[in-house]
Amino acid sequence: MQVEFWFEFASTYSYPAAMRVERLARAAGVDLVWRPFLLGPIFGAQGWNDSPFNIYPAKGANMWRDLERICDDEGLTLTRPPVSFPQNGLHAARIALVGADEIWGPEFVRSVYRANFAEQKDISDMAVLAAILTAQGLDAGDVMARATTSENKERLKAQTAEGIARGLYGAPSFFVGDELFWGNDRLEAALKWA
Amino acid sequence: MQVEFWFEFASTYSYPAAMRVERLARAAGVDLVWRPFLLGPIFGAQGWNDSPFNIYPAKGANMWRDLERICDDEGLTLTRPPVSFPQNGLHAARIALVGADEIWGPEFVRSVYRANFAEQKDISDMAVLAAILTAQGLDAGDVMARATTSENKERLKAQTAEGIARGLYGAPSFFVGDELFWGNDRLEAALKWA
Repeated sequence: MQVEFWFEFASTYSYPAAMRVERLARAAGVDLVWRPFLLGPIFGAQGWNDSPFNIYPAKGANMWRDLERICDDEGLTLTRPPVSFPQNGLHAARIALVGADEIWGPEFVRSVYRANFAEQKDISDMAVLAAILTAQGLDAGDVMARATTSENKERLKAQTAEGIARGLYGAPSFFVGDELFWGNDRLEAALKWA
Repeated sequence: MQVEFWFEFASTYSYPAAMRVERLARAAGVDLVWRPFLLGPIFGAQGWNDSPFNIYPAKGANMWRDLERICDDEGLTLTRPPVSFPQNGLHAARIALVGADEIWGPEFVRSVYRANFAEQKDISDMAVLAAILTAQGLDAGDVMARATTSENKERLKAQTAEGIARGLYGAPSFFVGDELFWGNDRLEAALKWA
């Protein structure tokens, strides 16, 4: 079986999930598919124009504390609060979609999460994303050109729509066939299911 | 150290938490304090007049499926959907508050969760609650009289207010001193912290 990892760059709990998922999937002998999507349309349909962690302050305060504890356990740096929260991950998601089928994709995803949650960088800034691609030995201009074709933009919208149709409502999420697992803390259960 | 278990009888994830918490706390050598509270005032302040699992159907659908998987792992019966969701746990919470300091309290709490989520019983029905108390060998009339004094009613309100002041926003939750852990899936982390 395979597990699909659905992630959004603005999502806080997607950060530890993104850093763990490849290692744990490999250890479990489960194939991994990286599926970037956008939370904006999902939250918008629920009447939210902002992260629920901003809309509900007590929940948000404890999320940051909980994430600190999780990152401590995982040995991950977490800077709190980031530059702004949530950051706009649209460009990064388009690039990640191009990378989902290519060898550099997973490390690009992890680098963007580190930039967002560990390095206080603005991940909506094309220069930040280009620097990540360049550091990976890629032609940043070429990758970005492929990321911004209308075909790729539509593909990201279609991917988000597919997730919604299958029951997706938050990030990170994991699909094993039709079985949906929501949350970084459900990664182990998803792999066990697979 | 001690762990405080904050629970609401309407809360789905409080069911497996309530069934596990005493066993795990004992194994960890951590003292356990049972603290019933009401989610109604908390959700109301957020503009919710219903469970978020009803307000957001995709989230609700996956919650039930997730809870089925958790209960399967724990060997707990789960009937889905219950009589109505969420059930009104006010009377049960008042009784649980009386029981929080008495030997019969923990088993009363577990019995009410079983009645709600495994036995399709109406836990707002005084007769259902009286039957649980009687089965425990208690004088149901006496316990209920103590539960419905204005002093005890105010104590439940004050307990909820205390939780909110300390950052509580959902159930189940665990406090270890000022450290707040939210969710059945954070029980192990809370005990490790204690």
